[in-house]
Order: sequence, then C-alpha cells, then structure tokens
Amino acid sequence: MTEMLAPGSTLGILGGGQLGRMLAMAAARLGLHVHVYEPGDACAAEVARDWTRARFDDREALARFAAACDVVTYEWENVPVEAVDVVAAAAPVRPGRRALEVAQDRLAEKEFLGGLGLATAPYARVDGDEDLAPALVVTGERGILKTRRFGYDGKGQARFTSMAEAAPALAALEGAPAIAEGFVDFEREISVIAARGLDGEVAAFDPGENVHRDGILHTTTVPARIPARLAQDAVLIAGRILGALDYVGVIGVEMFVTDQGLVVNEIAPRVHNSGHWTIDGCLIDQFEQHVRAVCGWRLGDGRRHSDAVMTNLIGDEVFEAAAIEGAALHLYGKAQARPGRKMGHVTRIMPLAGG
Amino acid sequence: MTEMLAPGSTLGILGGGQLGRMLAMAAARLGLHVHVYEPGDACAAEVARDWTRARFDDREALARFAAACDVVTYEWENVPVEAVDVVAAAAPVRPGRRALEVAQDRLAEKEFLGGLGLATAPYARVDGDEDLAPALVVTGERGILKTRRFGYDGKGQARFTSMAEAAPALAALEGAPAIAEGFVDFEREISVIAARGLDGEVAAFDPGENVHRDGILHTTTVPARIPARLAQDAVLIAGRILGALDYVGVIGVEMFVTDQGLVVNEIAPRVHNSGHWTIDGCLIDQFEQHVRAVCGWRLGDGRRHSDAVMTNLIGDEVFEAAAIEGAALHLYGKAQARPGRKMGHVTRIMPLAGG
Repeated sequence: MTEMLAPGSTLGILGGGQLGRMLAMAAARLGLHVHVYEPGDACAAEVARDWTRARFDDREALARFAAACDVVTYEWENVPVEAVDVVAAAAPVRPGRRALEVAQDRLAEKEFLGGLGLATAPYARVDGDEDLAPALVVTGERGILKTRRFGYDGKGQARFTSMAEAAPALAALEGAPAIAEGFVDFEREISVIAARGLDGEVAAFDPGENVHRDGILHTTTVPARIPARLAQDAVLIAGRILGALDYVGVIGVEMFVTDQGLVVNEIAPRVHNSGHWTIDGCLIDQFEQHVRAVCGWRLGDGRRHSDAVMTNLIGDEVFEAAAIEGAALHLYGKAQARPGRKMGHVTRIMPLAGG
Repeated sequence: MTEMLAPGSTLGILGGGQLGRMLAMAAARLGLHVHVYEPGDACAAEVARDWTRARFDDREALARFAAACDVVTYEWENVPVEAVDVVAAAAPVRPGRRALEVAQDRLAEKEFLGGLGLATAPYARVDGDEDLAPALVVTGERGILKTRRFGYDGKGQARFTSMAEAAPALAALEGAPAIAEGFVDFEREISVIAARGLDGEVAAFDPGENVHRDGILHTTTVPARIPARLAQDAVLIAGRILGALDYVGVIGVEMFVTDQGLVVNEIAPRVHNSGHWTIDGCLIDQFEQHVRAVCGWRLGDGRRHSDAVMTNLIGDEVFEAAAIEGAALHLYGKAQARPGRKMGHVTRIMPLAGG
C-alpha cells in the first residue's frame, strides 16, 4: 500500500500549465521521468520527457497515456472526472476523484466543508430566478453570484449589493447553475498549503497572507500577520480536510481571518499559486512535496528558512521582470503575454523575523 | 555589447550531463528555451526543449545547432575547441575559447596561473622518460604524474614516492604528454565559485571546503573553516582569473590552504560540483548565475541564506538516497548506476552559524 515509486519511474501530469511545469522540474530533481497530458499549449512539456497532446475526452489517448505512467496526478482542478476515471483504470491517480468532485462544484465544496463543521460564507443554491429571493434571505442583500463550475481568477462571478442588482447579475452568468454567497467581513485572507502522504502523514507549510488585485492573486507574504494560535488553527483545518478526503498530495486552502475566527473560502486540490514562495523560502517546496506524496515517498522537510514575499507577474509585467534585482525570478515560458495571464512570479526572501 | 537576451530566447549547451541538466532547469526558470548538444546519453535533454544528438566533430550538426541558438555555453571543459570555433561563427559562445584552452591542458593552466603571479604546486613538463629526472628535481621525489589533457575525477593520474616509482607511473599514462606535480602540504581544500557578467561585474559565492574520496568530490561544506581574510583572498584570486580570461559565466577555482597561503590547484571553466550547495543554500544558485551571465543579464543575489553540507551520491549510493530525510535530494536521472559515476547529490542546510 505504501510502496514507494523508484527514481526512474514515470509521473503523469494531467494539465500542462505553469503548475505542471514546476511539478515537472521538481520531479526531475528526484530522478523521475515526466509525461504531460495537455490538449493546448503546454509550457510544462518543455521540461518534461513526454507530451501527449490530446483532448480530455479522447479516451484512447488517455488510456495510452495512463499505460505509459506509473502514477498520475493533475495540476488543474477542472480536469473532467470522466478523464480521471479512464486514467485510473491503468494507473493510480492521486489525489483521487473525490477531491476533484468536491473542488469542481462550489455547492459540493460548501456542503463538504459544512459537513466537517467548518465555517464558510453563508450561501444558497441558485438554479434560476425563482431561487434569488430565498437565497438573499440567507446571504443578505450584499453578496456575489458564482457559477458552480469552471470559475477561476474571478471569472464566472458577479457581485450584487441589492435585490435589484441580483437579477441582472444572475443573467450575466447565462443560466449556469450558481450559488449566491454572502460577503464575509474579513481582516485578511490567508492560505495553508498542506500535504498528505500515502501513509497518512500530514505536513503543512507556514500560512501565507494573500492580497488580490482584480480577482487575481497579487502577493503572498509569509509569515501571515496572525497570532500563532490562529496559524495553528489554520493548519488543523487543512489537516481535517485532507483526512476527510483521504487525500494524497498537496492541497491549497484559502481562508478568511474574521472576528469570529477562520472562515474557509475555497480549496484547490493541487499545488497553489499562494505556495510558490516555498520554492525560495523552504528547503523542500510545495512542488516536490506533492511529487513525494503522490509517488509514495516520505514527505520532505518543509520548514521555511526565510521569510518571503511572492509577487505574481501578470500580462505585460513580465517584460520588466528580468531587470528586477535582489529577487528570484520565475518565468513560465509562455509565448504570449495576454492581459490577466499569469506569466511568472518574483520572490524576495528575508531572514526569519522571529529568529 | 551588453545586450540582454530576452526571455523566450534559446540557450545552447554543449554537453548533456548533470551540469547541463541543472543549467537547463535554471534557464527554464528564467523563461529561456534550451537546446542541448550531446553525442551520448544526455540526462540534460529530458528537461530541455531540443536535443541535437551528434558528435563534436560533426561540423554540419554543430552549425545547425548554432544557427538555432541565441547564445551557446558549455558544461564540459573537454569540448573540442574546434567545435567551439564552428559554433562561434554563428552564435556567441560564453565563456569563450581561451578559457577552454587554458583548462584543457594542465601545462597551459599552470603557466597561465603562474603568469598571474598565483601560487601553484611545483610542476614540470614530462613528454617522455628523459624528462623524468629533471622533473623530479623540481617536484621532489614525491608527486603525481598527470596527463596534460582529458583527466577528470582522478583519471589519467599516477602517484610516485620515489624515482624508482616514477618511471612505471609514467608508463601507466601510455605515452600521453604529462606533467609532474609535487605534493602540496595542505590543511584543507577549498573552492570558490565565482561569476563574471558580460559587463565585467564579478560576484562570488562563499568559499566551500571540499573533501574527496577515491579522487572524487565527496562533500562540500559551507562556510569553509578558514579565517575571513583568507576567504577574501580566495575570492580575489578567482576575480583575477576571471578578469585575465575576460571570462563570462561561472568558474570553479580549487585551492589548497597551506601555511604559505593559498595555492591554486585547478580551474574549471564551468559550473562546478563544489557549487551544487548553492541550489539549496542561496536565493540565486550557480546555475542561474551562469545563465544570467552568458545571457547578458545582471548577476543575481548569490548571498547564502543558510549554511550547507553537500554530499555526492556515487554509483549505488543512489539507491538509498530516496529515503534520506531532512535533506534536499537531487538525482540526475541517469539510467545506470556505474561505480564512480555521479548519480546525484544531497544537501543539508542549517541556519547561518555567524548570524
């Protein structure tokens, strides 16, 4: 059960974006071969041994890919579960189907978190106009409508501050099943990047504090400016989520810090943008931790050796980035710098403030 | 003259071993494409976009490779200078021909170092038996015969402790042009990994202390146990060598610490095994520093954030390595673990002892 994949084995990655790219490099450092599966451009493929360029509904390509891999993971939470099922017939997929199902549907996610007794924003299911009025009783008249599926970086979302605004906001989602969420009055947003091994061992990186711009992560600062007790609570919450999902790999859990304690915002069943600081701030980063977990290795030492501030490079910002001094630059090798596209990130490190 | 290669450009690497592999990953982090040129097995090719598999005397393949690259470097000091000349006709090669010429011939290297006023072991040219007796007047009767070319990791070397042993030692080198070197009575061996940018800027990593086993580097410990003044001397020596060669890129300079000060043992015109600790001990490591230099970028911040001990994994040692805890593991993805073959390395880091 806890067999360890030997160096020289092949790790498959469903999805070929920057997360896959950094996973591929971490896997290479451990002497593993990498096979990327991605229908579109794949900046991960350039640092991987193999690339299957095929659609996620191409069952034959998926089966061939799975047969060529010793274990398969994903770097994108919207990989269709049907694709995962095809792959899982030939190779273990870690984390498994359940984590994907929960993370792909905002309603399922909220219900899962509520079932664990964890606080979330108030929410209500909105399948159509007739659900709006009762939903606003739950959320209050200020909130946000979100499609249940396929939202990321602020896409598929519309805010409302009154009943009058809620109907057009829902119309903007073009009939997609949605949920209404009430606003959470929070001091700050933090995230915990945690890993769970095949043997059930859990390890978490120190919580980071996130600042967004235009719905996209802008900076993560570590340590987060929160009391030690709250940091511990945050890690314990991540641990409960990992255990409940019988999860193997790295997960990102976003939380709001409020007067009433921690409120879970969202979970991402994969390595996470807010964990990129670990590349430069820790001996073992989130990418290697994930590879270790899914390959059945013992988790590595994820203590941070330095404080860190990670800043995303979005769109054109990448062109000035090469001249930034005194920081570690990470570019993702994407050919085109489109507005809102994550092109790279920059990390500054400082000696541990706490000693 | 100091034009900076843009992300998205292509870096060519002559040689495809582990040094090329770690260079390729550093280049990928900076958004560069990598093209490896290597006739044999190439563990670097797996993390590079392109691989030209051709011999170093295949002028046509070399010219095609050069035409596909924006700048070319090497990861192996025994790349034939004739190959470099073919490449240099189409793309800048950094570091240049001169550094290769000096490093490929132990006699030229000693003469170069002596010309800079730097101390080396006593040495004498040995082209044949008739040179032995006069050589031993220079070196004393205890010393080592080394082929002038193509030696590495203790290969092409034979020790002698008397005139009677010197003749068979020379015979063991099978007529290759050689030099005799006297033994240096040293406290410890250190090395400086230093970089010089296209604009002449020089930056050095903190000197490491090296321990060899069976002629192969076993560990590098940073900081080296030497007084601050001596560490500064070591860095200045590296700086003089870089300047004299009008060098662009990272160089490794091995030195002996003796009662009479520092004696230069050997220079390697490339990233160096004794600099592998920088991956885990510094924000910017020797591989990225080399890529920055040869691409005309400003050098990065190479200060160490942690003390470090790097241990090489040789031959079969690699099979136990995956279970090592509390350390960073780096495997090179080589298919076969032959005795004496460098398969990977492990780095432990500790908080800076000096604060």
